[in-house]
Amino acid sequence: MLVISGSADTGIGENIAKSLGAEYLSSSFKTFPDGEMLVRADCDAKNEDVVIVQSTYAPQDRHLMELFFLSQSILKQKPLSITAVVPYLAYLRQDKPFTPGESVSAEAVLDLLYSAGISNLVVVQPHKLETLEKFKGKSKAVLPVKSLMDYALREIENPYLLAPDKGSFPFAKEAAKLLNCDCTFIDKERNISTGEVSIKNAPAERFDGKNVIIFDDMISTGGTTAQAAKFAYSRGASDVIAIAVHLLMSGNAFATLRESGISGIYGANTIPAPNTYQIDVSEEIASAVRSLI
Amino acid sequence: MLVISGSADTGIGENIAKSLGAEYLSSSFKTFPDGEMLVRADCDAKNEDVVIVQSTYAPQDRHLMELFFLSQSILKQKPLSITAVVPYLAYLRQDKPFTPGESVSAEAVLDLLYSAGISNLVVVQPHKLETLEKFKGKSKAVLPVKSLMDYALREIENPYLLAPDKGSFPFAKEAAKLLNCDCTFIDKERNISTGEVSIKNAPAERFDGKNVIIFDDMISTGGTTAQAAKFAYSRGASDVIAIAVHLLMSGNAFATLRESGISGIYGANTIPAPNTYQIDVSEEIASAVRSLI
Repeated sequence: MLVISGSADTGIGENIAKSLGAEYLSSSFKTFPDGEMLVRADCDAKNEDVVIVQSTYAPQDRHLMELFFLSQSILKQKPLSITAVVPYLAYLRQDKPFTPGESVSAEAVLDLLYSAGISNLVVVQPHKLETLEKFKGKSKAVLPVKSLMDYALREIENPYLLAPDKGSFPFAKEAAKLLNCDCTFIDKERNISTGEVSIKNAPAERFDGKNVIIFDDMISTGGTTAQAAKFAYSRGASDVIAIAVHLLMSGNAFATLRESGISGIYGANTIPAPNTYQIDVSEEIASAVRSLI
Repeated sequence: MLVISGSADTGIGENIAKSLGAEYLSSSFKTFPDGEMLVRADCDAKNEDVVIVQSTYAPQDRHLMELFFLSQSILKQKPLSITAVVPYLAYLRQDKPFTPGESVSAEAVLDLLYSAGISNLVVVQPHKLETLEKFKGKSKAVLPVKSLMDYALREIENPYLLAPDKGSFPFAKEAAKLLNCDCTFIDKERNISTGEVSIKNAPAERFDGKNVIIFDDMISTGGTTAQAAKFAYSRGASDVIAIAVHLLMSGNAFATLRESGISGIYGANTIPAPNTYQIDVSEEIASAVRSLI
């Protein structure tokens, strides 16, 4: 077995290789003056099970194309199989046409990965589990809620879990069970024309003396999380932290979260996110790879 | 027949639709805060021959992914056929592995286009004609040298064609025949370790009283073209202009060319290039589309 990292591997590849007892190498990556990239995987992949590790955070399209290029160049060497480990897989939220003619980008990306020669796919916490089933090869989702909560258990006393919206409530309840603590959610509504989100039904609970954990599958601009943090403080929370699997941290997310009074941001190491605490999920990824090959 | 422009169409789509007597629409394009794009083609493509027009200049990967998304969303509507018009197709220069393990990106891109549902492909001046033959569907190259030279004939007296390197000499000779003028080339060598390019064998010719046209298939950083321009002036040229099919104009290309004394930059309208003269090739593209459908 051979593990190869792309340029957007967050350091997970080498750990996975160690866990699997596999040879490890890093592919090389170069950009030409016109913006085209050139990737190179200098390995002998013939008759090998090859694992490519490449996350696809922003710039998503570049990181996806790099993964396609890597896979196609390894495919030429006639490997036994190609497994892609994509700790964060972009475009999974676009899983249906919300208006007519809209691209179902999630399916499109899954189809392109398969076309590029990837037969097995490992993704950490896809937005919806069922989306991954559209992949034409074998796939496995790594769900690291337990790892994140084990970490929280060691760090946080008197926790209270708060889902920042109704959609993430089931996910937060799952985490609350692991922490053996209470859990509630903020019911919100989005103004369809302005896109603005406001609190529709605030939960009745108070959080006095509690360390509130805002929990979601991802933090993008941080707006939703910051709103929930302010709400928690307004209801007496001693402290508020944010935990999410994928820390996209788009735009000014870090400043937005800091301004809301959040004292710490925790996530899995699927995306590089400065000033956050990242929990290594490579061991769980290695198990998923083992289950597919 | 239906012609749909992507966000990187340079205005060619609407002209093509007119030439073909086809319905025309522009797809819509939006970027989310995390950097993901969403494309939408609000049309009824069922049982239609659909032509998607999308160039793939920088950011190449974004423009390619947009094309894949558009094609896949149209494919769901069960069209008769999907033809992609890609005035400039990125990655075609990476047509073989120059060192072991290097991605043959040209083939990879052609395969992905086909996988995305594109059965016919029209490309303007691929770097090498034979690369396009790797496309698994039907393909047609539009070679607009005559259009460019017709334009030059009207504008330039006493022309002399200069190929900036040996590789572009056959291409320049073809143009020289159309202009009925002389043609030569600069023989250069690249230092493999530094990447620096220097003149190996300068041609003996002088260009006194001549308006020298530096001719190539593309201008990227402008370095090669600027070097040729300085050479032409040093050998007595009255004036020097640059003509290339694809004006990539990467980085400081415009400044580099201006500093070399080049008085005008001409190209096809395959890539938006400010401060250049762009010659419309949509009529030729329309003919190519007609020959495929």
